[in-house]
Formats: sequence, structure tokens, C-alpha cells
Amino acid sequence: MSKKKSNYKTTHKKQPRANKKIGKAPGTVTYLGFREGQKSDVSIIEFDENSYQVYQTDVVEKILDFKNSPSTSWINVVGLSDEAYIENLGRTFELNPLTIEDAVNTSQRPKIDEYENYIFCVLKMIYLDANNELVSEHVAFVLMDKAVLVFQELKEDVFNGLRDRIHTKSGRIRSRGADYLLFTLLDAIIDNYFVVLENINSKIEQLEEEVYDNPTPYTARKIQDLKKEVLRVRRRIFPVKELINRLIESENPLVTKDTKLFLKDLMDHCLEINESLQIYREMSMSLLEMYMSNVSNKMNEVMKVLTIMASIFIPLTFIVGIYGMNFSFMPELEWKYGYFVVLGVMLTLFITMLILFKKKRWL
Amino acid sequence: MSKKKSNYKTTHKKQPRANKKIGKAPGTVTYLGFREGQKSDVSIIEFDENSYQVYQTDVVEKILDFKNSPSTSWINVVGLSDEAYIENLGRTFELNPLTIEDAVNTSQRPKIDEYENYIFCVLKMIYLDANNELVSEHVAFVLMDKAVLVFQELKEDVFNGLRDRIHTKSGRIRSRGADYLLFTLLDAIIDNYFVVLENINSKIEQLEEEVYDNPTPYTARKIQDLKKEVLRVRRRIFPVKELINRLIESENPLVTKDTKLFLKDLMDHCLEINESLQIYREMSMSLLEMYMSNVSNKMNEVMKVLTIMASIFIPLTFIVGIYGMNFSFMPELEWKYGYFVVLGVMLTLFITMLILFKKKRWL
Amino acid sequence: MSKKKSNYKTTHKKQPRANKKIGKAPGTVTYLGFREGQKSDVSIIEFDENSYQVYQTDVVEKILDFKNSPSTSWINVVGLSDEAYIENLGRTFELNPLTIEDAVNTSQRPKIDEYENYIFCVLKMIYLDANNELVSEHVAFVLMDKAVLVFQELKEDVFNGLRDRIHTKSGRIRSRGADYLLFTLLDAIIDNYFVVLENINSKIEQLEEEVYDNPTPYTARKIQDLKKEVLRVRRRIFPVKELINRLIESENPLVTKDTKLFLKDLMDHCLEINESLQIYREMSMSLLEMYMSNVSNKMNEVMKVLTIMASIFIPLTFIVGIYGMNFSFMPELEWKYGYFVVLGVMLTLFITMLILFKKKRWL
Amino acid sequence: MSKKKSNYKTTHKKQPRANKKIGKAPGTVTYLGFREGQKSDVSIIEFDENSYQVYQTDVVEKILDFKNSPSTSWINVVGLSDEAYIENLGRTFELNPLTIEDAVNTSQRPKIDEYENYIFCVLKMIYLDANNELVSEHVAFVLMDKAVLVFQELKEDVFNGLRDRIHTKSGRIRSRGADYLLFTLLDAIIDNYFVVLENINSKIEQLEEEVYDNPTPYTARKIQDLKKEVLRVRRRIFPVKELINRLIESENPLVTKDTKLFLKDLMDHCLEINESLQIYREMSMSLLEMYMSNVSNKMNEVMKVLTIMASIFIPLTFIVGIYGMNFSFMPELEWKYGYFVVLGVMLTLFITMLILFKKKRWL
Amino acid sequence: MSKKKSNYKTTHKKQPRANKKIGKAPGTVTYLGFREGQKSDVSIIEFDENSYQVYQTDVVEKILDFKNSPSTSWINVVGLSDEAYIENLGRTFELNPLTIEDAVNTSQRPKIDEYENYIFCVLKMIYLDANNELVSEHVAFVLMDKAVLVFQELKEDVFNGLRDRIHTKSGRIRSRGADYLLFTLLDAIIDNYFVVLENINSKIEQLEEEVYDNPTPYTARKIQDLKKEVLRVRRRIFPVKELINRLIESENPLVTKDTKLFLKDLMDHCLEINESLQIYREMSMSLLEMYMSNVSNKMNEVMKVLTIMASIFIPLTFIVGIYGMNFSFMPELEWKYGYFVVLGVMLTLFITMLILFKKKRWL
Ligand SMILES: [Mg+2]
Ligand SMILES: [Mg+2]
Ligand SMILES: [Mg+2]
Ligand SMILES: [Mg+2]
Ligand SMILES: [Mg+2]
Ligand SMILES: [Mg+2]
Ligand SMILES: [Mg+2]
Ligand SMILES: [Mg+2]
Ligand SMILES: [Mg+2]
Ligand SMILES: [Mg+2]
Ligand SMILES: [Mg+2]
Ligand SMILES: [Mg+2]
Ligand SMILES: [Mg+2]
Ligand SMILES: [Mg+2]
Ligand SMILES: [Mg+2]
Ligand SMILES: [Mg+2]
Ligand SMILES: [Mg+2]
Ligand SMILES: [Mg+2]
Ligand SMILES: [Mg+2]
Ligand SMILES: [Mg+2]
Ligand SMILES: [Mg+2]
Ligand SMILES: [Mg+2]
Ligand SMILES: [Mg+2]
Ligand SMILES: [Mg+2]
Ligand SMILES: [Mg+2]
Ligand SMILES: [Mg+2]
Ligand SMILES: [Mg+2]
Ligand SMILES: [Mg+2]
Ligand SMILES: [Mg+2]
Ligand SMILES: [Mg+2]
Ligand SMILES: [Mg+2]
Repeated sequence: MSKKKSNYKTTHKKQPRANKKIGKAPGTVTYLGFREGQKSDVSIIEFDENSYQVYQTDVVEKILDFKNSPSTSWINVVGLSDEAYIENLGRTFELNPLTIEDAVNTSQRPKIDEYENYIFCVLKMIYLDANNELVSEHVAFVLMDKAVLVFQELKEDVFNGLRDRIHTKSGRIRSRGADYLLFTLLDAIIDNYFVVLENINSKIEQLEEEVYDNPTPYTARKIQDLKKEVLRVRRRIFPVKELINRLIESENPLVTKDTKLFLKDLMDHCLEINESLQIYREMSMSLLEMYMSNVSNKMNEVMKVLTIMASIFIPLTFIVGIYGMNFSFMPELEWKYGYFVVLGVMLTLFITMLILFKKKRWL
Repeated sequence: MSKKKSNYKTTHKKQPRANKKIGKAPGTVTYLGFREGQKSDVSIIEFDENSYQVYQTDVVEKILDFKNSPSTSWINVVGLSDEAYIENLGRTFELNPLTIEDAVNTSQRPKIDEYENYIFCVLKMIYLDANNELVSEHVAFVLMDKAVLVFQELKEDVFNGLRDRIHTKSGRIRSRGADYLLFTLLDAIIDNYFVVLENINSKIEQLEEEVYDNPTPYTARKIQDLKKEVLRVRRRIFPVKELINRLIESENPLVTKDTKLFLKDLMDHCLEINESLQIYREMSMSLLEMYMSNVSNKMNEVMKVLTIMASIFIPLTFIVGIYGMNFSFMPELEWKYGYFVVLGVMLTLFITMLILFKKKRWL
Repeated sequence: MSKKKSNYKTTHKKQPRANKKIGKAPGTVTYLGFREGQKSDVSIIEFDENSYQVYQTDVVEKILDFKNSPSTSWINVVGLSDEAYIENLGRTFELNPLTIEDAVNTSQRPKIDEYENYIFCVLKMIYLDANNELVSEHVAFVLMDKAVLVFQELKEDVFNGLRDRIHTKSGRIRSRGADYLLFTLLDAIIDNYFVVLENINSKIEQLEEEVYDNPTPYTARKIQDLKKEVLRVRRRIFPVKELINRLIESENPLVTKDTKLFLKDLMDHCLEINESLQIYREMSMSLLEMYMSNVSNKMNEVMKVLTIMASIFIPLTFIVGIYGMNFSFMPELEWKYGYFVVLGVMLTLFITMLILFKKKRWL
Repeated sequence: MSKKKSNYKTTHKKQPRANKKIGKAPGTVTYLGFREGQKSDVSIIEFDENSYQVYQTDVVEKILDFKNSPSTSWINVVGLSDEAYIENLGRTFELNPLTIEDAVNTSQRPKIDEYENYIFCVLKMIYLDANNELVSEHVAFVLMDKAVLVFQELKEDVFNGLRDRIHTKSGRIRSRGADYLLFTLLDAIIDNYFVVLENINSKIEQLEEEVYDNPTPYTARKIQDLKKEVLRVRRRIFPVKELINRLIESENPLVTKDTKLFLKDLMDHCLEINESLQIYREMSMSLLEMYMSNVSNKMNEVMKVLTIMASIFIPLTFIVGIYGMNFSFMPELEWKYGYFVVLGVMLTLFITMLILFKKKRWL
Repeated sequence: MSKKKSNYKTTHKKQPRANKKIGKAPGTVTYLGFREGQKSDVSIIEFDENSYQVYQTDVVEKILDFKNSPSTSWINVVGLSDEAYIENLGRTFELNPLTIEDAVNTSQRPKIDEYENYIFCVLKMIYLDANNELVSEHVAFVLMDKAVLVFQELKEDVFNGLRDRIHTKSGRIRSRGADYLLFTLLDAIIDNYFVVLENINSKIEQLEEEVYDNPTPYTARKIQDLKKEVLRVRRRIFPVKELINRLIESENPLVTKDTKLFLKDLMDHCLEINESLQIYREMSMSLLEMYMSNVSNKMNEVMKVLTIMASIFIPLTFIVGIYGMNFSFMPELEWKYGYFVVLGVMLTLFITMLILFKKKRWL
């Protein structure tokens, strides 16, 4: 039963090999992810209170124009494995080489770096895909005066609701600047963290039922996988709180006082998420303890059956053994009703034992 | 036994679905609770040293008058699912959209936000209802110069004692302002936390007795449910300490120095509650350990019975087996008292075994 | 065995019912303890370098005189259930209503409050009574310019040594002021904490011996009770450190620089006590682990006995069973020494098994 | 099985004997490592934007020249057991005796010391050698104005990629000063920490499979060894974060603002490494819990087999025992089909038992 | 086996009785140790760059001269039970009564107190004596301008290496002042902590081998004793870090900037020691877990033997039982080769069972 390999899908990719980075100069742009061989695909949404346009281009110089245009531009770069293109793009936008390195470093932990002309932040977009499986994707943002540069590995993302709001001019988004755009991007990511949490919560509840109702050795493995998933999600989400906090406390004029009010609301969500993760961690640890106590209870039940059967029939077998002996002189054997007397004695013994076990609450 | 579902009532509602918030603009008023389709019901108690009136109205402009009147007004809004009405009310009172959003967001964690003209705080009212079941209700307060605006989901609340004191003019309440009113509202909520703690404490003591006297597999489940209840209550109560502390340290003139003295007293209670919750957490974890040790002890007892029965009767059965063999030449079988000699030997063995087990303290 | 109720005395009283406080105005004097219906009994020791007098009175105005007299006065109030009297006393001494409330609130956690004219502190006096049982009594101090007001529930206390020193003029006490008197009162309380710790320590050592020598299911219950006692004592003692620290760092002229030197010595003791409690906590947790390992060892021993008996005699019984069969043609049965050959074979098997089990170290 | 000694190689050397240091004056240069009797071997790489030379010498005065030359010099000292030579070298470079002592003290924990003319730091170079075994080597750096002095025990190190970059003039290294050289040295060490972490991670995954598929008592020992390895690696790596942080916050002009930007990138890596180590620690602790639950499951399985066999055959054996009795009057024995009736009854019983066990899911 | 008392020597003395201090005035000199009835023995080493003398006297006034002499004096007081003498000595040196009290209070935790004219510190000298047993001795230092006053209970100490260095003028000691002398005294104590740690480490390794190779119930007791030893040593050593830190950060001119450099080196050692103790704590906790898993494994082995024996022979015994029945009509009994057929069937069953158990890896 425990010999076949687990088919419980791990929802997180393996860490990229650390060797790739060894011996390279700092600032070398090295893609560490698993979506290799992809051409970068750049799309731009440019908007202000009155106008709204969508562009698609891969000419770096044209992209640079959006950075300088007075309207707010959302420059979305999809596909990070073309290191040369990304490096060129970064240099054109006058980004520090360390920034460009981290923008494609898919194993970078969530963090924020402030430079003179831009603020850089990187985190994980974690969401449930169409098949309800957890996806964790690297995403990096560069906040500039009139633009937000977004780096992601795959076209799929959690920003479609936001694209709709820009298009339909709903909410404040069209009347505010790049910092508010960054806030809405972060907000979309963090809203999805709640969905991930609910997914973990329902897994915990499911496993809890399984532990009580029908625990198998395989259940223990599922609990262990869950514990690891909680650890991993926690690791990816926990530092986001610090990131938001640093944005709120930044004295950089790129982040306006008005947007900070919204960032504080995000901070609330981060605190709540971290509390939930702490609870899930304790609950997943409790699950294994419950499983163990259930295994012990089951063993107790098995042992009781054995003990009852053995305690009743071993003495009876001894009695019939006595009268199976071949001694030439055994008076009882000659008695007319000897056989029935012995049967009666054994029945009495049998019933006595049952009553005793009943009293011990073993039956 | 472990197959039927638990009928131990969980006293907390499920978390609202996170999906509801996805894709919406920040500041969108979205009710997340389970009491939907309710019209908001607004009642106002206006009082000063000399006068006391109770009003009921749903005309937003009339409600606004109470905010501006020189007497202290307690504006109590019951029912949060009518998002449009609440949003209108909030706008009329010039509340920030984020404040209105959080006022109806029933999954908001306890927190406090200071704005220029008002202080907003949200927390959980946790109390035992008429059926002695734990109820956890979202409640939000807006402290203004001459009024406190209260948002709650259900008419039932923990403020009746306070209403009586205002009515009967007992204590200081009638002679003080809106900040003291907020303090008494918070005090009523926190006094009920103590009742909740006592309820948890008595559950722990009850389970402790059950673990010692009559543990069943179902006991383990009850322990697990208790652990989760402690975790959940702790999560809801723990941040309140920070909320009170922020009120005490606020430099906002809305909170007077005199009221801060009373808030410090509330702070004492918060510290005590958090210490109790910490103790309950450790005690509930100990409960499962005790349960496990009890299960092991029971198994030991079962094993001893089995071992004693088997150790005594298996050798005896072997002896009677010997004399049940059909060899043509077995001298003992022909002895006159062979049978009685064997019976005697077996009785001696039986008694020897009993003495041995007595010495091992297994009997 | 595990069915009768524990007769291990819990040394702490139940928490007072939280309901008593619900709905009451803050500052309402509410006695929460269990020594109800007692008249307050006030005795005063007034002393300076040269004189020493003891008074007994319940006239509040006369008591007030001692507050104002130039000699140092120790005003000792015993019995807190007469709420009206205590409230009157407090008002006469111009204490804040919140102070009077906490002075009789026997479930108040250790804390210190500084007011303009006095410093209020409350803590637990924990000591072993004449029957060597742990007593935890609420005690509150009000430090004023020339007097210390002490509130306690019962006449019995830990201050008799101090009374002797005042009487016999030993040490510094007679030549110093009210702040030094408060220090000596606190010192007497904290000295008794050490006695309580030694008591816990000896209980741990006793249980350790019991776990090794003769563990019963009842031992587990005693370990659990000990764990709870450590938790409870820790809760009552731990905050005292903060209380002393606040006295040391107070800028209130009521506490002189000279007395602070002595308070620092008290601080040392608090640190040591907290370290001890931490150690005891870990040791009491270890006890249950040891108990569990002992239970497992015992089960191992039981299983070995069963396995040895069964492994030796079941095969032998099988052999004698063979020759108990009634086949008409079984050559061995006719052999002259068939019976003795079989006996020999079985003896050989028996000895072989014993040697094997000896090698496995099961014997 | 559990009697032969573990052949799982511990990858870390024993701690040097503490006695060596006892009674010696502070600042006495005492080599504590295991590579004794080695002559120190000094090689120098001197470079600037335009030139690049490699030297080899053991004349201390000549080495001193490189310190003062305007080009950046990397002075690499291999072999620390020649205490007199190292002491002389240190004195010539005007290093504090405590610095020289720590440079050869192979059991020094990672730390940084700032002096007026130099910054000293010491840490562990941990890497996988050619045989994929973990090597942990002591390494110390002295950052001076125009040179970095490196002390290591063995020729093998993790700096070959860096040597190549200097030689081929790739990256920034040739155009920057001694502080950037120190950064690249630290970067090379920390890049290797990631490789070590991946190695630990794959060991955890391997043991996880072993725990599920084929746990033996030996598996528990491997888990324990892993736990100890994680503890040891954590101890050696954890303080490096503080070291880097102190470099970043240093106000010493030896560390330029430009290099600090790169050090912040190192800081990112340190945070990530420490998070990973925390996760590995929790996972290795979980492994033993999983192992225990698996052992319990296996025992359950064993017990079930025993209980099924015994419960089925012990009653049947009793039945055949009855008809093996030798009573002179046993009516059934005379029945024509008595034997077949009994066989039928027993078959029915046998099948009933199988069905019962099937229902209990024991089969 | 588990009934005789442990003969594993506890290396630490019992805590002195707390009662001794109760009721006494603060500052009362009370010896709490176990070496009572000893006369104090005072020896002085006076030295400067050029001269070195050793004195022995018990005349307090003569001892005072050394305090005032311009050379550095190490005044070593051995034997603390003569409370009157110590009190007189302390008064003569103008020490605060609280200082004198703590100097002889052998249960004082490590700490430092700064007074105007001297710095007082107290800690534990822990070392292995001639019999390799752990000794923990109370030691107190008073640092004055030109002298260090040392209080210890027993003549034996860890300072002989230091005495040699003073005598032979090796290192810096003769050319520096009293603060450097204090540093070297502390350094000697802390160097011995490393020896104690190595001793603990080797005990852990020894127990680890015992757990794997030959665990007995007695092993669990040794693990428990080790856990307690680690807790106790940690308690005595941990606060020393804070003591050294306070010396480094002291603004008292008694501690020169030059000596602080050396104290920082001591700080390094303290950090390393505390890290080691943390590791040992975790390892000792792991030991019991390993022990438990080993006990479970052993039980599994025992159960397998039982199950195999029972599963093989119980069915066979049933078969022979069938043909032991005495029915008058049992056709098989009359068959010529009935007996041999049955023997063959049983052999087949026996081999089948062996193969099945082999497949389950139970054999
Ligand atoms: Mg990584
Ligand atoms: Mg990661
Ligand atoms: Mg990285
Ligand atoms: Mg992922
Ligand atoms: Mg919000
Ligand atoms: Mg838990
Ligand atoms: Mg939520
Ligand atoms: Mg919630
Ligand atoms: Mg929220
Ligand atoms: Mg709720
Ligand atoms: Mg109070
Ligand atoms: Mg616990
Ligand atoms: Mg455990
Ligand atoms: Mg209370
Ligand atoms: Mg309490
Ligand atoms: Mg209270
Ligand atoms: Mg009490
Ligand atoms: Mg003291
Ligand atoms: Mg422990
Ligand atoms: Mg060391
Ligand atoms: Mg080390
Ligand atoms: Mg060292
Ligand atoms: Mg090493
Ligand atoms: Mg980076
Ligand atoms: Mg864990
Ligand atoms: Mg003490
Ligand atoms: Mg101690
Ligand atoms: Mg003390
Ligand atoms: Mg000691
Ligand atoms: Mg050093
Ligand atoms: Mg552990």
C-alpha cells in the first residue's frame, strides 16, 4: 500500500539550480525559471482621464517613448528567458544592472529596492488556474514617474479585472497616476492570496474529515504534503508585508500621500493573510497529531478483538484438551452426563467472560 | 464508532468567499457576511447631562443632523447587506470610501484608522447567546466630535447594560462626550470576552475529566475542535490590544486625556485576556498529550490481560496435548493416579504463574 | 483504576465569575473574590527613627490623619468584600475610582499605575500556609508621600518579619520613608516566591522518581496538574518584573534614588525567578515525555513475555497435536520409544528457542 | 540490524579541543584546525583597469609592498598552521593581535571587526567537493585601502570563477577597488551556500521517499543525522547576514557607497538562505514524525494479521477439541454425518469471520 | 530494571533553601552555599611592570592598603561562610551592603552592578575537576581603580594559568591595569566554559550511540538527566553575555577603551557558547525522540515474531485437531496414506506462509 509513489500533485515547481549563478559576475542577467526559449512579448496600455490605447511592439526605443509620455503607461513584458533582450530593455530604461538581474531571477524572494529614479519590487503571483491547481509565478514591477514596467513569465495573470476597469473607466484608476496603478496591481495579487488561503483551508477541512473517518497510511502523506505547501506559501507571502510597509514609509515622491492611504488598506490584508497562515500552520501540525491518536485508537480496537477471542477460547480449549487425554483412569469420562456437564461448565465460563469484558467496556 | 460525522457544533461561521472581492476597485462597498437581504435599521440615542431622547429614522439627512447637534449621539446602524444605503450614509458623513468598505467587510481583522475628522475602528463582538452558544459578530465604530456611529449586522448586541445606564443616568456616561461613549462601548465588548474565556475554560476542564474518566476516539475530536476554537478566538481578540493602545497614544483631540485613563484600564483587561488565551492554548495542547498517554495506558491494560491468559493457558494446553497423544507405549497413561498427578502439576503451574504476574504488578 | 476522581488538591481557587462585571459602569467597586461578608479591618503602624505606635480604627477620617502625619504610616486594610466601606475609604484618600476598583478586583493581573499624588500597584502574595499548601492572595499597595496603604483579603500575610524589624528597629527600615517601606513589603512577597519555586521543584523531583520507579495512569494526571500549576504561578509572577522595572524607571519623586538601588536588587530576584519558572516549565513538559517512554517500555516488556510464551509453546502444542491424530496408519505411534523420541525432540526445540531469545536479549 | 555502527558520513569535522586555548594570554596566535604542519603559501594577484599580474613569494616585506602599491591586490594566504609566520605577517601589516588570533582560529564564528585602518571579517566557506561531500572551511578577510588579505587553510577554494573574471577582464571587477574585490569574494562564498542548500533539500526529499516506501530503523538514524547537519550548517551560515549588514551600515571610507549597492544584493541572498534553512529545519523535524506514524501503521498491519489468524482459528480449534474428548457418552460422535456436520459448521464460521473482518476493513 | 535509583551522578548542587532569606532585612549578609564553617583566607598578588609580590593576611586594614597602593592588586578571598568577616571587609572597602550580600549569595544569577567607585560582577566558574566531574562555583569580582577583589568559596579555581603569566611576565598582563586583570579573570572562566561544552557534546554523542545500539529504559533516564544538565548550564552561562556587554558599553572610567577591545573578543566567545548551548538543547530533545522511535521499532520486531509464529502454527494445530476428533465415521482416517497426505498438506501450508511473510519483508 505504501509502496507506490504519491500521485498527490505538488503544486510548486522545483527550485532552479543554484549552480547556474556560480562564478558569474554580479549583475549578470540570468534567467533561472523553467519557461525557456520564449521571445519576450511587450504590450502597453496608455491611459489618462480622457483617452485609452493599447499597443504591441518589441522595438525598445518605441517602448521608451511610453515612459516619457505624460499619460500613465502600463508596460507589460511577458517572457523572461530572452536574457539579451531584457538586458537591452533594462539598459534603455536606465535600470541598475542589479535590478535587471532580479527582474528575471525567478527565485528572488519578495523585496523592494528604491533607486533615485524608480522603485523596484518583486514578489510572487499565486493563484488557482483553470484546473484549480496552485500556480506560483514570479512578477517584478518598476515604478517610474509616468509608467509601471511589469515583468512576468507567462501571459496568464491576475490583472484582467484591472484591465477591464481601465477600459470601462470604472473606479478611480483612470484619474490617477502610476503609483495608483502599481497599487492596483499589488491589490490584484493580494486579493488572489485570499483565494489561495481558502483553498488551503478547504484542504485542511477535507483532511480533517479523512483523519476522523477513514485514515490510511496515505492520509499521513497528504498531511505532510499539506504542511509543506503551507510552509512554501508562507515563505512566498510573508515578506510581502514588509514590501508594502516600505512603500508606505517611502519618502520617494513617486509614491503620493493619497496612494499611501490605499497601501495602508493593503497592509491590513497582509496582516490578515499572515495571521491565517499562522493558524493553518498550527492546524496542519495538529492534523498529524490527530492522525497518530487515531492510529493508536485503531490499534487498541484490534488488540481488544484479539484479547477477547484469545481470553475466551484459550481456556476453553484447555478444558476440552483435558478430556482428550488418554489416561486409562479418568473417572469423569465414564460419567453418564460427563460430556454435558463439561459443555455446561464451558458455557458458564463463556458467558462470565463476556460479562467481564462488557464491564471493562471492551465490548 | 468513528464513522458518523461530528455533531459537536462549531460556533463560528465559515469565512466569506474571497472571490467576491476579486477584480473590484478598492473602496467598493462589498458586504461579505451571511445576513444578506436586510434593510439597514438606524436608531439614535441623543443625550447630554440633562436630556435623553431615542429616535428611529432611515432618512440619511436627518441622521446627519445628529452628527452636528451639540449633544452626544449614539447612531446605531443594524444590518449591513444593503450596500447602496451604507455607501450613501458614509458619503453623507464624509467618510473615506475605504472606511465604508471596511465598515461592512465582516472579515476585516480588528484595527483602527485615524482620519482628520474621525477615528474608525473595527473589531469582533464575541458573546454567548441565549442558547449558550458562541456568537462572533462584526462591529465597526466611527468616533466623531459629537457622535459615535456604530455598524453591526444583527439587532442583538452586548450594549443593553449601557443603554440602561444612559437612560437611568447612572455612572459618568451622561456627563461625558463621544469619546467616553466609545470607551463604554468597547468596555462592554471586552467584558464579554471574559465570559467567552470562562466558557472555554470550563470546556477545557470538562474535557480534562473526560480524558481521565472515559476517553473515546470521539474525545480526541472534541479536543481538536477546542484547539481550533481557541486559535480562532485568539485571532479575533489578540489585535484588540493594539487597537486600544493606539487610541491611548493617539494625539487626535477627539480622544480626551480623561478618557485615556479609562482606556488604560481597558488595556489591563486586554493584557489579562491575552495571557488567559495563551494559557488555554497550552492547556488544550496538553489535553491531546494526556489523551494519547491514556490511550497507551489502556492498550497496556489490554495487552496484560492477553499476555496473562495466554501465558497461563498455552503451556497447560501443551501438557494436556502430550497426554492426548496416541503412542502405543506411554507409561504415564497406565499409572493408577496419572491423571490426578497431571492435574496437580497443572494446578501448581497455574498458581506459580499467578504469583509471578502478581510480583510483576500485572495483576 | 482511572475511574475515580483525582484527589490531588488543586492549590488555586477558581476564577471569579466574569458576569459580575458585565453591564456595570467602569470604576464601580466590585469585589470578585471568595471571602465575602467580611467587615474591613484597618490597623496602622506609624513609625519614625525614634517612635513606633500601633493603632486600630475603622473611622475613615482618623485613618486619613495618618496619611498626613510626618511619620511614616503603614495602613493595613484587611477584608475587601465590604465594597461601600472601601469605596468611602478610597474617596477620602482621593484615589481615582479606577484605583479603588482594582484594589478590590481580586482577578486583576499584577500591574502598576502612576497618578499625580500616589503610585498604585497590585500583585499576588503567593506562599505556603501552615499545612504546606499554596495560597495565592490578592494584595494592592498605594504609595503616598508619608504612607503606604495596603489592601488584602485575609489577615494572614508574609509581612510578620517586617513588622518585627520595625518593632526591634533592625536594619534601615525605621530611618527611611514610605518608598522604602513599599520596597520591604514587595521584598517580603518576592522572597516567598522563592519558597514557592522550591516547592514546585521538589514536586518535579518527586514526580520524576515516580515516573521512573512506579508509573501509574494516575502519575500522568499528577504531571498534568503540575504543568497547570507552573502555568498559573508563572502567570501570576511573571508581570511582577515589569512592575518593579516601572518603579525603578519612574520619575515620580515618591520613589527616591536611594530606594531605587534596593529595587534593582529586587529586579535581580525577579529575573532569577522567571528563569526558574522557565526551567520548571520545560522540566514539567519533559516529565510527560518520560512517562510516555516508560509506558512504551512497559508495553514492550509485556509483549516480550507474550511472544516468548507463544513462540515456545504453540509449535510444541502443534507437535503433540500431530500424534493425537487418529489415523489408522501412523507408523511412529507403534515405535517402542516413539513417545520418548518426541519428548526429546520437543525438549531440544524448547532449549533452542530459549537460546535464540537469549541472543535477542529478550530474556 | 541496529547494532552495526552508522556508515553515513558526517560531513563536518569535530570541534577542535577547547583545552588548547586554556591558560594562554589573549591575542596568542593558536591554530585550532586539523591541517597542521603546513608551511603558509602566499600568492598575490595585482590588478587595475589596464594591468594584471600574479606573484608568489613568502618574504613578508615583499608582500607588504603590495599593500601599499596603488593597484588593487588580492593577497591569498593558504595554510594557517605555521603560527609564527602568520603572526609575523600580521605584525608587519600592523594588524591587532586579536585579529591575527582570529584569522587562524578555525572555530571562530562568522563575525566582522572594524579597526581604524582595516576591516576584518571571518566566515565559513561551505561547498561540495569533487566527491560531492560537504566541506566547511574557515576563511578570513582583511580589507585594506588597496588590498584584500585572505586567510584560508587549504588551496582548494570557491574563487576560481572570480580569478577567471579578473584574468579575462569580464564584468566590473578590474575597474573597481579593494572593497568591490571583497564583495566578489563574499558573493562567491554565498553563491555556494545555495548549492549546499540544494544538497540538503535533495537529501530531505530522498529521506521522505524512504520514509514512505521502505522505512527501516536505519532510516531514523539518517533523519537524525540530517537534523544535525541542518543545525550545524545553520549555525555557520546564519551570522553571515549580520556580517553583511554591518558592512552595509559601516561608515568606514574603506567601503564605498557604490559597493554597498552590491552588498545589499548579497543581503537579499542571506535572507533567502536563512528562510530556506528555517524551512529545512521544520521539514527535517516533520520527517521523524512521519517516520513514527509509519512505524505505528506497520505495527497496526502486523497486529491485524495476528488478530485475524487468531480470531479465526482459535475458536475452530476449540470446536475440533470438543470432539477430540474421550467421554464414553457423546451422542454426536455416533451420528452418521456428525463429522461432516461439524466440518460444515466450521466452514460457515470461517466465512462469517472473513466477512466481519472485511466489514471492519481489516482485510 | 527501572526500580533501583539512578546512580548517574548529578553534577550540580541542590539550590540552597530559600527560607534562609525570609524575614531578613535587605543587605543582610547571608551565606547560602554548602561550604559552611570555613574561615576566610585572603591572599594578594601585587604587581606592576617591574615588581611582583605575593602576600597572605587576614587583617582587614592591611588588605585595604593594597587597594590604595599604586601597583595593581589581585585580592583573592577564599571562603564565604564567615559572614561577619566578609561584612567587615566589605565595609572597610566601602562597598554597598547590597554588594556584600550578593558577593556571598551563592545562588545569585550572573549580573553586573556599577557603583560610583567600583564595578561589581558575579558569575559562575564552571569547570571539570580532577575526577572529570562538573563543578559550578560562585565567584564575585569587585573592580576598583588599582585592585580587583575576588570572592570565591573554594581554593581550587581556574586562574592558575593567569597566576603563571603574572609571575613569568608573559603577555600584556604585567603592563596593564586592574581592568585588564578583570578581563583576564573573566577570560579564564569563559575558556573553561568551552571545556564544559565539549564535555556535554561528548555525552550527547555517547548517548546517541547508546540509543542506536543498545537502548534500555535506563537510557531514557540518562537522556533526561542530560536535558536537565543542559538547561542548568545554559541558565548559568547565558546571562554572562549581558554582563560582558554591559562592561563594554560602560562609560565608567574604570574600564579603559583598550581593555574594551579585549572584552569584545570575550563577547565573541559568549555568542559562540550560547549558540552551542542552543544546539545541544535541540540535540538532547531529539535524543528522546530517537529513543522513542527505537522503542517502537523494537516492539514492531517483537510483534512480528509473535505474529509469524502464531500465524503459521495456529492453523496447523487446527488441522491436526480435526484428525484428533473421535467421530465414528471419518473416511480420511481409514485411508492408507491419510496421515502422510495431511503431513504433506501441512508442509505446503508452512512453506506458503514463509514465502508470504518473506514478501511482506517481515522475515
Ligand atoms: Mg532560492
Ligand atoms: Mg522561493
Ligand atoms: Mg537570489
Ligand atoms: Mg510555486
Ligand atoms: Mg480595507
Ligand atoms: Mg499543535
Ligand atoms: Mg478574511
Ligand atoms: Mg476572521
Ligand atoms: Mg480584508
Ligand atoms: Mg464568527
Ligand atoms: Mg481595572
Ligand atoms: Mg504542552
Ligand atoms: Mg510529541
Ligand atoms: Mg480575570
Ligand atoms: Mg489569574
Ligand atoms: Mg480585570
Ligand atoms: Mg489565587
Ligand atoms: Mg542581591
Ligand atoms: Mg522538552
Ligand atoms: Mg570554539
Ligand atoms: Mg562550529
Ligand atoms: Mg573563539
Ligand atoms: Mg567544518
Ligand atoms: Mg539580486
Ligand atoms: Mg513540525
Ligand atoms: Mg536564589
Ligand atoms: Mg541555579
Ligand atoms: Mg538572589
Ligand atoms: Mg553552583
Ligand atoms: Mg577572538
Ligand atoms: Mg527536535
